[in-house]
Amino acid sequence: MENFTYQCQTKIIFGKKTEDKVGEETEKFSNKILLHYGTGSIKKTGLYDRIVKSLNNHNIKFIELSGVVPNPRLDLVNKGIKICRENNINFILAIGGGSVIDSAKTIAAGYYYQGDVWDFFTKRISITKTLPIGVVLTIPAAGSESSPNAVITKNEQKLAITSDQLRPQFAILNPELTFSLPLNQTVAGIADMFAHIVERYFTNTKNTDLTDKLCEATFRSIIKNARLVIKNPDNYDCRGEIMLAGNIAHNGILGVGRNEDWASHRIEHQLSAIYDVTHGEGLAVIVPAWMKYVYKHDINRFVQYANKVWGIKGNGEKTALKGIAATKEFFKELGLPKTLKELNIDDTKFNIMAKKSSPTGNFVKLNEKDVLEIYRMAL
Amino acid sequence: MENFTYQCQTKIIFGKKTEDKVGEETEKFSNKILLHYGTGSIKKTGLYDRIVKSLNNHNIKFIELSGVVPNPRLDLVNKGIKICRENNINFILAIGGGSVIDSAKTIAAGYYYQGDVWDFFTKRISITKTLPIGVVLTIPAAGSESSPNAVITKNEQKLAITSDQLRPQFAILNPELTFSLPLNQTVAGIADMFAHIVERYFTNTKNTDLTDKLCEATFRSIIKNARLVIKNPDNYDCRGEIMLAGNIAHNGILGVGRNEDWASHRIEHQLSAIYDVTHGEGLAVIVPAWMKYVYKHDINRFVQYANKVWGIKGNGEKTALKGIAATKEFFKELGLPKTLKELNIDDTKFNIMAKKSSPTGNFVKLNEKDVLEIYRMAL
Repeated sequence: MENFTYQCQTKIIFGKKTEDKVGEETEKFSNKILLHYGTGSIKKTGLYDRIVKSLNNHNIKFIELSGVVPNPRLDLVNKGIKICRENNINFILAIGGGSVIDSAKTIAAGYYYQGDVWDFFTKRISITKTLPIGVVLTIPAAGSESSPNAVITKNEQKLAITSDQLRPQFAILNPELTFSLPLNQTVAGIADMFAHIVERYFTNTKNTDLTDKLCEATFRSIIKNARLVIKNPDNYDCRGEIMLAGNIAHNGILGVGRNEDWASHRIEHQLSAIYDVTHGEGLAVIVPAWMKYVYKHDINRFVQYANKVWGIKGNGEKTALKGIAATKEFFKELGLPKTLKELNIDDTKFNIMAKKSSPTGNFVKLNEKDVLEIYRMAL
Repeated sequence: MENFTYQCQTKIIFGKKTEDKVGEETEKFSNKILLHYGTGSIKKTGLYDRIVKSLNNHNIKFIELSGVVPNPRLDLVNKGIKICRENNINFILAIGGGSVIDSAKTIAAGYYYQGDVWDFFTKRISITKTLPIGVVLTIPAAGSESSPNAVITKNEQKLAITSDQLRPQFAILNPELTFSLPLNQTVAGIADMFAHIVERYFTNTKNTDLTDKLCEATFRSIIKNARLVIKNPDNYDCRGEIMLAGNIAHNGILGVGRNEDWASHRIEHQLSAIYDVTHGEGLAVIVPAWMKYVYKHDINRFVQYANKVWGIKGNGEKTALKGIAATKEFFKELGLPKTLKELNIDDTKFNIMAKKSSPTGNFVKLNEKDVLEIYRMAL
C-alpha cells in the first residue's frame, strides 16, 4: 500500500424529499447565491419550483445562471465568475449532474483568481481558495457531488482540475429525482461510475487487499442494480443503490493507498471534446478497448477482476479475456454503444486525438502510438 | 434504504513515517496544546520523542496529561478540562488508541460546557461546540480516530456520547507504529473492528445492497489479514490492511441508510465497566452469544453472512449456524477468550448487568430477560 492523505468533507444528505432541505443547508453559508443549472429539465420536473420554495422559505436571494450543457464550456464559467463578482455572491448552488457541478466548481475556483481561470487547467496552478458550493444531484454518474475534480471544455480541449478545495460543502441525493432520467442518460451514468472504479482497480500497487475488495463490492452492486434499474426505472431502491454507488465510486475512498490509472478517461475526453460525445457513452467504448490493449501487462489482475467482479471461475489468459468480454457484454446489455462508429466517429482525427491524450496511464504507460491503437481497436 | 446524512471531515494521513507530520498538521489549529496519552508505552517505543521533536520544530507548546487507562475514566477527563481552561489551551493531541482518543474527545466536549461533562452521557444533552482534536493512532481497534463517538467510565458505569463535533480534525495512521503491539492487544482490536461491522450488518432495513457488500468486503479483509498478522506481526502490509479496515469499519460509511443494532456493544460495556475487561475480548465472547440468541429472527440474513463472509455454501438454519460457529472459531483461532469464565467473570452480577444494559438492540429488541440469557449463554 502507498502512503496517502484522504479527506472528504462533503455532507451527504441522502433520501426521499431531501431537496426540501436545500434552503436550510444553504443558509449556513450565505443568503445571496448563484443558482446554477442546465437547460431547463429541472423546470419540467418541478424540481426548480421546490428548490426556489425552499430558498425563499429561508430568505435566500439568488441570481440564476442556466444553460450548462453536457461537456460544459468555459464561456459560461466566465459569465458565472463575472456575475458572482458583480453581485457579491459568495455561494454557488448547482442543481444537476456532473456538468453543472463541474461548471459551478470552476466558477468557484475562478472567483478569487485574478488571472484567466483556464490557467488552472493548462498551467497546473494550485487552487488555494474557492467559493463554497452546494449540490442537488439529478444524474448519478460523475461523482462530482463530492469529488475534488472538475472537467471543462474550451475549443475542443477538455481538461481537468483537482483540489480538495473543490469538494462541495453539501450534496443532496434524492433517488426519486432520477426516476425521470431517460434510459440513455441512466446507462451513460452507470458506465461513468463503472469506469471510475476501473481507473482505480487496475493498479501496479501491490498489497491493496481491502480497497480491492471494496472496489469489487461496488462493481458488483453497480452491475446488479444496473440490470434491475433498466427494467424498473421507478424502483426507488435500485435508483438509490446506483446513486450511492456513483458517489462512493468517485469520492476517492476506493483509491486510497493505490496508484490510479486514468488513461481511459483521458482517451475518452478527446471524443467528448471534439465530437461532443456523452462522456459515459464514450467510456463504454473506450474502457473495453483499453482493457484489451493492456491486459497482458498483469494477467493475474484481470483474472482477479473476472473472478471477483464477474464470478467467472478459472485462471490464466482465457479467464482474463472472459472478464473483458463480460464488461463489453454488460455495456451492450445496457444499450450502450460498442464502437466508435456507433457514435458516428471515424478515424479522421485519430492522429490528433492520440497526440493530445498521450502520454497517459499509470497501470500501463501509454504513448501516442499506444493510444492510436486503442482508438483503432474501438473503431 | 433509509434516509441518511453522512459527513466525516477527519483528514486521514496514512503511511510510513507519517507521525513526523504531526507538528505541521497541529500548527494549522494551535500553537498551545494538550498532549494526551496513556501509561507510557509511547515513551518506550520512541514515538513520544518523535512527536515532541515534530511539535518543537513547529514551535508548538504543550502541556502533558498522561495516564489514560483502558476503559478511560471520567476523573482524568475532568483533570484535562481543568488544565485546558487554566492554560488557554485550544487543541488536544491524542497519542494512543481508542481509550486515549475517547478521553480527549470528552475533554474537548467538556471544555465549553459549564455543567458537569458527565451530563452529556446521562442526560443526552446535544454537544454543540468542542475543542478540535488531532490523533496519532497506535492501536487499530475502536475506530475512534474518525468516529463521532466516545465512551467513558465512571463508577462502574460505561456510557457513550455521539456527535459529529467529536470527529477529530486529523488522524495519523502509520501501520509501523503497530508492529510493537502485543498479540493480545492486536487481536482484541481485531475483535472490536469486526464487531463494529456486525452492529451495522445485522439490520432490519431492507434493500441495502451496496452497504451489505461493502460490509462483507471489510469483514473478509479483516479475517484474511488477521490470520496473517498473528503470524507476521512485523508485516507492514497486513498491519496496514488491519489499520485501514479498523478505520473504515467505524467511520460510519458502512452503516449509511441502515438501522444499526449496537446490542453487543451495550451488553459488553457492562463487562468492561464492572470487571474492567478489555473491550475487544469482551466482544469476542458476547458477539457469538448474541448471534446465537437472535439468529432465528432473520435466518436469511445469517445465511447471507455465512455465504458471503465465510464462504460457507448452502441455506437454511444449518448454514446460518455454521456462520455463527465460524465467527466463534475465528476468535478462538486468534487466541481470544471464548467464555466469560475465561475472563474470570461468573454469574454473580448478571442480574444487575442485564438491568443496566437493557432495553437494547434494533435488529432484535432485547429486554432484561433476553440480555440475561445472552450473558448465560456466554458463561
